[in-house]
Amino acid sequence: MSWLAGYGKSDHDDYDNLGVDWVLQYEFGDIDQEQAITEFRMLISDLKEAGLRVQVRHGHSAALLVCIRVPRDHLGNLVHQSRIKDWLFGITHTLPEGDETTIADAESPSEEIRSVYHAVTWQKKLGGAGITPGFGKWKNVTASFPLHDQEACSRMLRQWNRKTILTAKDLDEIRALFGEKVAFYYAFIHSYSLFLTVPAGLGILGWLYLGPYSITYGAVLCTSCIVFVEYWKIREADLSQRWDVKGVGRLKVNRKQYVWEKEVKDPISGEVRHIFPGWKQFSRQMLLLPFASVASVALGALIVASFASEVFISEVYDGPFKGYLEFVPTVLFSLSLPAITSFLTRIATRLTDYENYRTQDQYDLAQTQKTFVMNSITSFLPTMLTAFVYVPFGRQIVPYLHIFQALGQKTNLAVHTKEFEVDVARFQQEVIYLSMTAQVLSFGEEVILPYVKHVLRQKWQNYQKRKAGMDHRRTTSVATDLFLIDPPEEVAFMTRLRSEAGAEEYHVEDDTMEMCVQFGYLALFGVAWPLVPLGFLLNNWLELRGDFFKLTLECQRPPPIRSDSIGPCLLGLDFLAWLGTLSTAAVVHIYRGPIAEVRLSSLLLTVFIAEQVYLGMRFTASVALEKIYSDTIRREEARRYAVRRNYLAASLARNSSPKSCSQGSPNGRTRHRVRFNERVNVYSATENEETYEGTPSPTREQPEDDVLRGSDREAQFWGAHSGDMAEAGVKLIRALSTPEPGNVSYKEA
Amino acid sequence: MSWLAGYGKSDHDDYDNLGVDWVLQYEFGDIDQEQAITEFRMLISDLKEAGLRVQVRHGHSAALLVCIRVPRDHLGNLVHQSRIKDWLFGITHTLPEGDETTIADAESPSEEIRSVYHAVTWQKKLGGAGITPGFGKWKNVTASFPLHDQEACSRMLRQWNRKTILTAKDLDEIRALFGEKVAFYYAFIHSYSLFLTVPAGLGILGWLYLGPYSITYGAVLCTSCIVFVEYWKIREADLSQRWDVKGVGRLKVNRKQYVWEKEVKDPISGEVRHIFPGWKQFSRQMLLLPFASVASVALGALIVASFASEVFISEVYDGPFKGYLEFVPTVLFSLSLPAITSFLTRIATRLTDYENYRTQDQYDLAQTQKTFVMNSITSFLPTMLTAFVYVPFGRQIVPYLHIFQALGQKTNLAVHTKEFEVDVARFQQEVIYLSMTAQVLSFGEEVILPYVKHVLRQKWQNYQKRKAGMDHRRTTSVATDLFLIDPPEEVAFMTRLRSEAGAEEYHVEDDTMEMCVQFGYLALFGVAWPLVPLGFLLNNWLELRGDFFKLTLECQRPPPIRSDSIGPCLLGLDFLAWLGTLSTAAVVHIYRGPIAEVRLSSLLLTVFIAEQVYLGMRFTASVALEKIYSDTIRREEARRYAVRRNYLAASLARNSSPKSCSQGSPNGRTRHRVRFNERVNVYSATENEETYEGTPSPTREQPEDDVLRGSDREAQFWGAHSGDMAEAGVKLIRALSTPEPGNVSYKEA
Repeated sequence: MSWLAGYGKSDHDDYDNLGVDWVLQYEFGDIDQEQAITEFRMLISDLKEAGLRVQVRHGHSAALLVCIRVPRDHLGNLVHQSRIKDWLFGITHTLPEGDETTIADAESPSEEIRSVYHAVTWQKKLGGAGITPGFGKWKNVTASFPLHDQEACSRMLRQWNRKTILTAKDLDEIRALFGEKVAFYYAFIHSYSLFLTVPAGLGILGWLYLGPYSITYGAVLCTSCIVFVEYWKIREADLSQRWDVKGVGRLKVNRKQYVWEKEVKDPISGEVRHIFPGWKQFSRQMLLLPFASVASVALGALIVASFASEVFISEVYDGPFKGYLEFVPTVLFSLSLPAITSFLTRIATRLTDYENYRTQDQYDLAQTQKTFVMNSITSFLPTMLTAFVYVPFGRQIVPYLHIFQALGQKTNLAVHTKEFEVDVARFQQEVIYLSMTAQVLSFGEEVILPYVKHVLRQKWQNYQKRKAGMDHRRTTSVATDLFLIDPPEEVAFMTRLRSEAGAEEYHVEDDTMEMCVQFGYLALFGVAWPLVPLGFLLNNWLELRGDFFKLTLECQRPPPIRSDSIGPCLLGLDFLAWLGTLSTAAVVHIYRGPIAEVRLSSLLLTVFIAEQVYLGMRFTASVALEKIYSDTIRREEARRYAVRRNYLAASLARNSSPKSCSQGSPNGRTRHRVRFNERVNVYSATENEETYEGTPSPTREQPEDDVLRGSDREAQFWGAHSGDMAEAGVKLIRALSTPEPGNVSYKEA
Repeated sequence: MSWLAGYGKSDHDDYDNLGVDWVLQYEFGDIDQEQAITEFRMLISDLKEAGLRVQVRHGHSAALLVCIRVPRDHLGNLVHQSRIKDWLFGITHTLPEGDETTIADAESPSEEIRSVYHAVTWQKKLGGAGITPGFGKWKNVTASFPLHDQEACSRMLRQWNRKTILTAKDLDEIRALFGEKVAFYYAFIHSYSLFLTVPAGLGILGWLYLGPYSITYGAVLCTSCIVFVEYWKIREADLSQRWDVKGVGRLKVNRKQYVWEKEVKDPISGEVRHIFPGWKQFSRQMLLLPFASVASVALGALIVASFASEVFISEVYDGPFKGYLEFVPTVLFSLSLPAITSFLTRIATRLTDYENYRTQDQYDLAQTQKTFVMNSITSFLPTMLTAFVYVPFGRQIVPYLHIFQALGQKTNLAVHTKEFEVDVARFQQEVIYLSMTAQVLSFGEEVILPYVKHVLRQKWQNYQKRKAGMDHRRTTSVATDLFLIDPPEEVAFMTRLRSEAGAEEYHVEDDTMEMCVQFGYLALFGVAWPLVPLGFLLNNWLELRGDFFKLTLECQRPPPIRSDSIGPCLLGLDFLAWLGTLSTAAVVHIYRGPIAEVRLSSLLLTVFIAEQVYLGMRFTASVALEKIYSDTIRREEARRYAVRRNYLAASLARNSSPKSCSQGSPNGRTRHRVRFNERVNVYSATENEETYEGTPSPTREQPEDDVLRGSDREAQFWGAHSGDMAEAGVKLIRALSTPEPGNVSYKEA
């Protein structure tokens, strides 16, 4: 478990990834040996075809771990190629120098790992190995991930614990380690928390002087919510330029599942494009509406039912066990919710598959949209019921519940006589619960619980392994032993490797959505209790670190995917800001005076006016912010302008003096020094670009011998079992697959 | 008047512009001679400095006409330079070949004239002559315009009369003649009319089977309005790409009136930029709100007053002269409206000046916004009053009007006793009036009236001129005579020249806004009478041709300014579509049943729901259309991609074989044949680009002798009075300025 407690000790050997770029886990527990062997042979050969080096180790139980390493020259060239591609698609504006064979240094670990990711997953015609975990012929490849950079992670976490707010530098660090998609989430939670300080501060004042349901506070709250959403849109554009990922969606490769109708050779660009007509896709997307309504009905019914029965028990029922019965509905609800949600999710996935998106991004985006719909129903509907149905109309509704009771126990006039009183405070209580308890609980179940589970599973598996190891030592031959027992210098590393292979995948969308839901609570019900934003602010301080802890210690390192936005949640924010304005207006109108006196027409008028105000506010905010942050847009233009002007100057120079044309790219053919396994400094992410010129260019080293210049331990690791890795894997499969180990050993002998 | 009747005859001599690229009118009627002379000398010298050729002729009364001609080589180079600039700012994606001295053929007349326009108006440091008509030291330059291409215009008008709908080719023609800004208006009215066919067709059905105020028709109407607005946004983007003007606002030069706070050397592009902080400008723009409210109050009060008094007279009053008195309020209103509007316009202009915009475009845009606000108030408020105040609340309000009457005539109980009845049909009548009579009237006062005025003024001025001519013949010397009396071969041309100089400037914004207002009527009140769209459709058929007639025969040819949108009216369309949905919902709700039964709460509910539907519809429409027309966006990307890929290929080729680098631009240094005064064919607007390569490059001819290769008449025109033009002008000023012609002739002697 060294890596778990690893944050304390500074023993670098435990941090060292031994130059392993990528890890694949191949499980063969539930398929027969021969199939496993053929599949595994294919896997290894495909990897070798793509020019990757592999080492095979055994994982927990019936699983193999394939450690992949891209030779540095190959990697450097991949990096260069992908930069060229970026430039071609207009993501970056400066054409990297050099020709097809140029070898570039990665700006950051994430750029390096992204190229590795492409090398492993891209289809063969694109120069990858075409390994798509869990899909098609690779459905037994159950995990595919890079190794964590423990050292950098622990350093960052230590830093964060010392400071209260993140800086742009911290965000750049995250980007350098985990890629833009993850970085965008942290950028979002960061500016969201900063924004929260405003309503939090005002909330304290409001709490002291105004009390709940104050018009002033409500107005301020809505305004700041609207402004924040508009601000974030600009902030996003700003970051996507700072990180050179603007419009990066364009250059993403097709999904393997993508079905196109016709191949078209683009008249202008001359590229072959696989087209699936937009109108068709849209008409398919229209299925979202029936889905949304079905989901609403299903979840809504569940919520209403549990809500009603709870009310019934708490307010009306006064039979035996009342104390216990009160919790029954909530418990039932919580138990049945996962089942229903997962069912709906399955439908959603079907739909998204059917909508047939070209890139993985678009696919995830569509999927997230649907999840968002379900999430918002489950999270907002109960409180809305309390706010707008139960409390206002409780007097009229609840008495009908007596009917059930009447059926239940024939003779109980006491109930009918007793005048029912709606508990007006209930709404506020729920809001307080949401902003305090619920947050803490969710944090616990999101971060702490999985951690404990993970640790226990590790212990259990290690125990299993030790047992198994003993069995094998008895049964299998010496040749296999070499594979089954980790050499002492690898033990720590392999333990870490196995536990990372066993860890969960990290989905940044979930974290983002959690924040959106929180924003929703604030916008919708924040006015009911002025301290809500304060509660959220405190929670987010913890959340930020907790999520990072989860990312680095509980989950596999995500492939550093690029993206230029937080995705569909942006739309969600817009929606919530709008709904929030209406709901705030309604809440204030209903709860300020005695509820009995509220008249529908006046309420409608309030909400109607609120909506107009919202539209106006939003328009104004967007215009204003655009004007104020116009630099963001301008910078982009300026950059493009600069590029073109330089090119023009160059071409003119060429025309005037044809001989000096090699100036066009001074060291276009120089090849850059390949620093073997150097930890690229995440700080100098931007300057690196310049450090190219004039670096000495050594002779091109072969993929085979590049390892020798690494550390001894790495040399050992990659030199070990210097045979055909496919055979090594086959031996392991034979050894590990449980059926009669006896004759396995015979075969070996 | 040959040019007015000119459409019939095919005598090309009358169409020939004698190679005049641009005309300036210098008026010295109200300043003293010496000042006029110095100013005029400066004018001529500035023009000569900028390398332009000039000929001076006398205009009507105390005015001189300066005919300007840019030597073809110079012009060709200007065209090339501006293309380079387009490329630099990322408007176009292909760098035009050649070096600083390259001479390019203009793609279209508009491109040519635009370069002339720049040569005349741009500040000297930008290489222009810096003539800014009516501003600063050039406030006596009262007109600055290119001459119409009568031949092309008449041909187009003839074509249009034969066809019902315009084609993309026609739009390209307009663009080639008058530039993108004008072309965008015609593109808009064109797609707007096409869109109108849908509600018009449904309207006929609705009129036959549904009758007014039908829910179905209302829904269809609103939907189609929303869809149209979203569609137009995409159409606009599409056209702006087809015409290579996307984001052209970036490269516009500063206005002379622009006041910047600091000069900043851009860190990235290295350009010097004049910055005026965005937040400051925005805070100044906020003044729009008080302005809008003041305008609303002022105009609103006026409208309400006239409305009330009209109602009073028509419904309540029954004293003497009722028949005549009924018209008094309307008349008064129509009389006082212009005064108030012009007053408000003056304030608006002040505001816009104060807001301090960098480019003329932004300035016009802001000004148009304000005009739009005033326009919509004056055009929509009266009908809205009828629809939502007079008819619903007439019963309650009108009786109060009796008070006036009571004051008026003491004893008339008849009125008080008579029960007042609101005329429900009044609203519909107004709508019918708007969609039929009003349209015809406005067309008349917009096209026919000015035409008549123009003709009469011409006649009068010619009569004046003849008289003056006789006087001058008596008084002034022979030398001056040569200037004062047009040589017979120039008569026709000069007449046309003078009348064009006297014509109005063309403001395309006004026409666009007229269409927006019409769209507003449709969206707001269309449901009241299903035939409204049909009426508009017919009107627009005429409008389209009328506007073109106005543009070509009644107005000066506008400088071919580029733009990538119809401007702020787009925002107006959005606004009207939104307001339209609400108003339609309200109208249907109020007028379907008996008005007395309408309850406020239910009405509010209807409108509220309508708004939600609007938001949903709009979102869906924009998403759907974006998907369906995704090609538009894609084409742009593809083009950029192609450019970059070719460049990459070239640079790689360079690197691999340094000697063959001149391939980068094969005939980069060839200079293109300059076709003297050839009418660039507006059809081959796009192909022209290719026709460059391999054309023989003659020796560079001097500005002086380039005219000799033109037609004889041109040679005559430009060769005439081969002295210093400044002196010629001075002579004319002396001759034309009325004070004691006697001693003028002495001076001359």
